[in-house]
Amino acid sequence: MRRVGGKWGETGIAETVGSVGEFGLIRALAARMPAGPRASVGIGDDSAVVSAPSGSVVAAVDLVLEGRHFRRSWSSARDVGVKAAARSLADIAAMGAVPTALLVAVALPGSLPASWALDLASGLAAEAERAGAGVVGGDTASADSVVVSVTALGDLDGLSPVRRGGARPGDIVAVAGSLGHSAAGLALLTAGVTRLRELVAAHLRPAPPYRAGPEAARTGATAMIDVSDGLVADLGHIAAASGVRIDIATAALEPLLGTPLAEAAEAAEGARTAEGARTAEAAAGGPSDPGRSTVLDWVLTGGEDHSLAATFPPSAELPPGWRVIGAVGPATAGKAGTARQADGAVTVDGQPYTVSGGWEHFR
Amino acid sequence: MRRVGGKWGETGIAETVGSVGEFGLIRALAARMPAGPRASVGIGDDSAVVSAPSGSVVAAVDLVLEGRHFRRSWSSARDVGVKAAARSLADIAAMGAVPTALLVAVALPGSLPASWALDLASGLAAEAERAGAGVVGGDTASADSVVVSVTALGDLDGLSPVRRGGARPGDIVAVAGSLGHSAAGLALLTAGVTRLRELVAAHLRPAPPYRAGPEAARTGATAMIDVSDGLVADLGHIAAASGVRIDIATAALEPLLGTPLAEAAEAAEGARTAEGARTAEAAAGGPSDPGRSTVLDWVLTGGEDHSLAATFPPSAELPPGWRVIGAVGPATAGKAGTARQADGAVTVDGQPYTVSGGWEHFR
Repeated sequence: MRRVGGKWGETGIAETVGSVGEFGLIRALAARMPAGPRASVGIGDDSAVVSAPSGSVVAAVDLVLEGRHFRRSWSSARDVGVKAAARSLADIAAMGAVPTALLVAVALPGSLPASWALDLASGLAAEAERAGAGVVGGDTASADSVVVSVTALGDLDGLSPVRRGGARPGDIVAVAGSLGHSAAGLALLTAGVTRLRELVAAHLRPAPPYRAGPEAARTGATAMIDVSDGLVADLGHIAAASGVRIDIATAALEPLLGTPLAEAAEAAEGARTAEGARTAEAAAGGPSDPGRSTVLDWVLTGGEDHSLAATFPPSAELPPGWRVIGAVGPATAGKAGTARQADGAVTVDGQPYTVSGGWEHFR
Repeated sequence: MRRVGGKWGETGIAETVGSVGEFGLIRALAARMPAGPRASVGIGDDSAVVSAPSGSVVAAVDLVLEGRHFRRSWSSARDVGVKAAARSLADIAAMGAVPTALLVAVALPGSLPASWALDLASGLAAEAERAGAGVVGGDTASADSVVVSVTALGDLDGLSPVRRGGARPGDIVAVAGSLGHSAAGLALLTAGVTRLRELVAAHLRPAPPYRAGPEAARTGATAMIDVSDGLVADLGHIAAASGVRIDIATAALEPLLGTPLAEAAEAAEGARTAEGARTAEAAAGGPSDPGRSTVLDWVLTGGEDHSLAATFPPSAELPPGWRVIGAVGPATAGKAGTARQADGAVTVDGQPYTVSGGWEHFR
């Protein structure tokens, strides 16, 4: 893409990333992505310069690949931009930091409509702005499929980072943001259900609760993580790093299991039944309440909501938006320390959690 | 790559990225990439935390793609790691900043030997260490070809960033680091010449003069850039951003045009002539001294050395390693301001520079 094309839009014909050329593309993308108030140097120089008033910078990178993390037939370019930004920004919030800036490296096929690239930039910029950040730097290249690498930067505002290893027995466990909505949305997309668009949107455009991260840090959160792999798996990372056991109480999850997830489970299952896809095994050996089991699977093991999970001292007064869902206990004797053993370090109502199989219907 | 494999090396059979699994891969990569003294949180949490004592952070991202920026048949995994790190780290130095940290996002084919991934990590770590930085964060995914996205962070050590727009008429122009070596190395590789390995190495593993950046900033450099697109092109970016004209004096380049570049031009041209590749046009209309023209092309238009070019006040005493190669003048009337007009804003001995064609032989 080293070719400098004509000024974008001059030709009046449908333009592609390739026909616009690298420099034209960079100018057009940069125009859609403001650097924000924290940047003293933004896109256009060798590097960006971003304020780091705390004397340290929080940084995370995430890769979003076409065919692995999204399909162009399901996700609009704007969706891809929002999702790519949200994944990295949630990692900043999960340290208790305030996002300040994004750097974005994109590889795009030359045949891609130029408007797709612009909409991608708009999605990145919109999610950055929602988090209070700007887009300060980037790189472009051509490739056979879309690659988006987003680096997010943040500032701790004078606080210590909230790491994974600080949970202590006696702490309470809480979450901020939705759980299972992304998984439900994926199930609806897979089943071809067109209702419940807000769940589909939650899958295509996750909306992490960025402010909840620094608020948790100020309240004394002892450990925190963003829920990208699923609640049980991600609390497992905290349990392993902290050398503790975590128990989730399903009674505390009850308010999350009704509308809209219950409706989604019914709709997705109904679509499959109508197609005759319910297998003999599922009919014979399935759970007694398949809808509820499916919803519980989504909430406990569905990833990509990019909500936040944290532990707090028992006396902590939780900030708005945080919901208690469990407690931290001492590690089972001989089980602390390794990632493999951490598989058993998170329990649900005191028992290891195994996926019911309802969820598997939608894979 | 979400599968957790056995402990790396346990099986005794040749392992691949896919057989090792994501978590095994991340652990093995992290073990090869120390976080360095600037990081209080490195790989293994949601984000890294890196010191930013100046109260701001300098940041740049670069994408390195298999088939675009390297070939696995020419570059070893370690070469790719060095090159990917060097590209981003040079952008930090070109602002006058000291590199502090890298974040690395890699996508790898599952069929790739696991040792390739480890050697990539070693290359990234080695170049980071040469720049005084560590590797503090990353992300991994699987893809059909290798993708490496490197974000570099740096600190200004209390100085102001040296931008592209600060050159003033009367300033001198200087460079630090090699020019044309990467282009010569590429020509040798293309021609199949196996001598002059140090030039081939310069192409495969650029070695930017990181310290020269902060030293130039302390000496009062008014504008700076890293030479990634070629000297004339990159000085053109400074000329455009500063609204000035820049003239390069070939007499000042003379010491750069002898060994080893002259020898490389002869060797590469000799290999082509032996193959009968010299075209009738080149034989009839070529320059009178094709070797010298080729070398001049490499020095003036060859990219990817990632050396530094800067402007200084005329009274500045240049730090070690910097060589004066030209001067800044006022913009030609009516020519300042736009990128397109900047094409003519850099002259060589007072004339616009056109590639001799010697260089084109090796494309």
